[in-house]
Amino acid sequence: MSALEPVLNTLDNNLDKSLERLFDLLKIKSISTDPAFKSECRRAAEWLAADLKSIGFEASVRDTPGHPMVVGHHEGPGADAPHVLFYGHYDVQPVDPLNLWDHDPFEPAIKDVGNGRKILTGRGTSDDKGQLMTFVEACRAYKEVHGKLPVKISILFEGEEESGSPSLKPFLDAHRDELKADFALVCDTGMWDGETPAISVGLRGLVGEEIVIKAADRDLHSGMFGGAAANPIRILTKILADIHDENGAVTIPGFYDGVEETPTQILQMWKGLDATPENFLGPVGLSIPSGEKGRSLLELIWARPTAEFNGITGGYTGQGFKTVIAAEASAKVSFRLVHKQNPAKIREAFRAFVRERVPADCSVEFHEHGASPAIQLSYESPLLSKAKNALSDEWPKPAVLIAMGGSIPIVGDFQRMLGMESLLVGFGLEDDRIHSPNEKYELTSFHKGQRSWARILDALATPGKV
Amino acid sequence: MSALEPVLNTLDNNLDKSLERLFDLLKIKSISTDPAFKSECRRAAEWLAADLKSIGFEASVRDTPGHPMVVGHHEGPGADAPHVLFYGHYDVQPVDPLNLWDHDPFEPAIKDVGNGRKILTGRGTSDDKGQLMTFVEACRAYKEVHGKLPVKISILFEGEEESGSPSLKPFLDAHRDELKADFALVCDTGMWDGETPAISVGLRGLVGEEIVIKAADRDLHSGMFGGAAANPIRILTKILADIHDENGAVTIPGFYDGVEETPTQILQMWKGLDATPENFLGPVGLSIPSGEKGRSLLELIWARPTAEFNGITGGYTGQGFKTVIAAEASAKVSFRLVHKQNPAKIREAFRAFVRERVPADCSVEFHEHGASPAIQLSYESPLLSKAKNALSDEWPKPAVLIAMGGSIPIVGDFQRMLGMESLLVGFGLEDDRIHSPNEKYELTSFHKGQRSWARILDALATPGKV
Repeated sequence: MSALEPVLNTLDNNLDKSLERLFDLLKIKSISTDPAFKSECRRAAEWLAADLKSIGFEASVRDTPGHPMVVGHHEGPGADAPHVLFYGHYDVQPVDPLNLWDHDPFEPAIKDVGNGRKILTGRGTSDDKGQLMTFVEACRAYKEVHGKLPVKISILFEGEEESGSPSLKPFLDAHRDELKADFALVCDTGMWDGETPAISVGLRGLVGEEIVIKAADRDLHSGMFGGAAANPIRILTKILADIHDENGAVTIPGFYDGVEETPTQILQMWKGLDATPENFLGPVGLSIPSGEKGRSLLELIWARPTAEFNGITGGYTGQGFKTVIAAEASAKVSFRLVHKQNPAKIREAFRAFVRERVPADCSVEFHEHGASPAIQLSYESPLLSKAKNALSDEWPKPAVLIAMGGSIPIVGDFQRMLGMESLLVGFGLEDDRIHSPNEKYELTSFHKGQRSWARILDALATPGKV
Repeated sequence: MSALEPVLNTLDNNLDKSLERLFDLLKIKSISTDPAFKSECRRAAEWLAADLKSIGFEASVRDTPGHPMVVGHHEGPGADAPHVLFYGHYDVQPVDPLNLWDHDPFEPAIKDVGNGRKILTGRGTSDDKGQLMTFVEACRAYKEVHGKLPVKISILFEGEEESGSPSLKPFLDAHRDELKADFALVCDTGMWDGETPAISVGLRGLVGEEIVIKAADRDLHSGMFGGAAANPIRILTKILADIHDENGAVTIPGFYDGVEETPTQILQMWKGLDATPENFLGPVGLSIPSGEKGRSLLELIWARPTAEFNGITGGYTGQGFKTVIAAEASAKVSFRLVHKQNPAKIREAFRAFVRERVPADCSVEFHEHGASPAIQLSYESPLLSKAKNALSDEWPKPAVLIAMGGSIPIVGDFQRMLGMESLLVGFGLEDDRIHSPNEKYELTSFHKGQRSWARILDALATPGKV
């Protein structure tokens, strides 16, 4: 019999107890954005530290200028075992508007919704207390069965994720040596659907830029000056229109440097996900993908870079009409980056592209609004194939490797500050209503999530470099 | 001796008395926008009616829902004499900020500014009491010398020009038969410079249009949807950028229908005016004409149509950055029209041009913001050559035929409602500070303006169809 089998059995047998523990944690009102709940946040941190200690972790609550961190460490079976850092957050979103909840958000419950399906209801069930406890329960069962853990495990629980993580970077910076592991496990993501687990292997990066085109030194009357004076809205719209060619590709020289073609088998896998334009765009009232022609919808949002115009303004924008030629016009432009695109180079290429198109008697100002490279786990990584197989063993359908169109700051921080890649696995579903009234988590997610982590930890412990 | 010579002599001899009359009118505080001056407006109207009566006009003050009109009629020398309608306005702009005036705005004075130059100071000296009295004085002198006027003259003085002329159209409509003449004389314009009189022969028309591009039914996150969802700002900027080609010409099919080439001799005359891009654009901080390449600056603003973008807005336009793909974006677009361009056809052509460029899963809404055709006096008109010669006889430099980039509503009203063309002649100068503190009018403008009208009336009376 494998080492895994009795761990899975223990998880099955202890499900009720694990729910009791989760409910204890869920009852703590750890809303990080509201100072009124400061002591509740600390109570959640203390509850977690105590729980980790009960499993044998060397765990403690660490003060920060904001809400405390919880850090725990547990030895692995030997010196050459992999070392993983698990990240989660114990703080939750506010619960307003309270009248839209069907029940007290801090009185968690199990609800039978028919067809054999049960859900856990309450604030934090899915985001992120339910998710992080799947991992803790897997550790507990492993320890209970084998007296030790299959790999060396460090844990970092944050209490400010819902309020912008102001203390996170300074904390990582001050504890680099303590927190650095071979890789991180981040459980703040979701499944593809209720039967299909998912691993996020790519997160797009971002360059944000604001441009202000300046023409005359004052607003002009379009009757008197129209046809003579440069119109900054015309200059701006011409520049923005030049950024995409007729096939939806970005025309800025060098923009695609560092963009890699996604492996054929991954594209095939994505095709199997049936994310048609109708499925994906229909719910927001659209139907035609706007990006590069000849690429599938999922490739467009997961593995291709974009140029988006997030805001534009100039001239008279109020009610009615004013025949004015404005002195200036501005736009906020962002680029989503993939693979090895270099944010600094993209910004410079964009600025050069704009400057070339500004008439000699006009000028342009640039304002920087953030930059972060994309994150891409190698499709060849053994870590990935081990996790993928482990998840596929647990769920009705094989695990899929997906990507995310946006960024998850913690993953970038781990990479940049600790030189550590992250494996993004979670069991949330799209309809979990995180951040909204009536947040829920599937009982299946909680139960099979625990079993999934047990399988992943087991896989990581087996020989083979990760 | 001609009929004209003694009239001119009389004007010279009566200059002091004409100034006394003007100052009496200037002292009346006929500010039309401020209800506190309602009775002053009526007093100005009554003063003018009485003055016209003293010359032999059948004149009266006519009530309107706002400030009254003054209407006067005077027979000409015979049944086949031309009939002209002279238009002016007796209301003036408010005088705030009062502390920026060098003197009481309603205590007019003659000021010697050196080099033999004298100016008349006070609110309304240039806009429009000083100007309208140049015409009245010419009539008075003609009557005094010859006992009759050289042509049949009707006069319309309005008291709401500075407050949007709300009563004008209803009044014209109710008095079509009474006010219809062979043509109108409008004196609310200026000279090219202190030595060069000008006649405005063209006024550009206008079509105003607002377009709203609608994409998704809600704002979207650009990380999640960027590359997949249509971005209305991108669609809008592409449409607007398509409107001008690389030579600055408008690409909307049919846009130039009805646009005529300006006669070579007129273009030559305009070249002589030395309105270089440096002279015209320099004062507002620009130097390069933005319109169709290969056309002079004056042709661009006087005789060529334009497409201008007067306002644009969409997405996030506040401080900082928001990675949003907006649900909609909108722009206010206006077209300045010349010659025989048809406003309704231009609007339809523009709408078709836009619709063609909106993706099938997006939509566009149009909002109409006014339409008026251009006004263009034929360069061949005998009226024009008579007035031009008369002015050239009076001033140091020959009169120039100019145009105006914007519209003067009264001219359009006369054309549309009374089927009557207007001759636009005035003696204001660019530095008259109309609408501002320290408004002034050159004594030369007032004196030679009277003489100019005497010459024009004399020319109109001589045989030859106008």
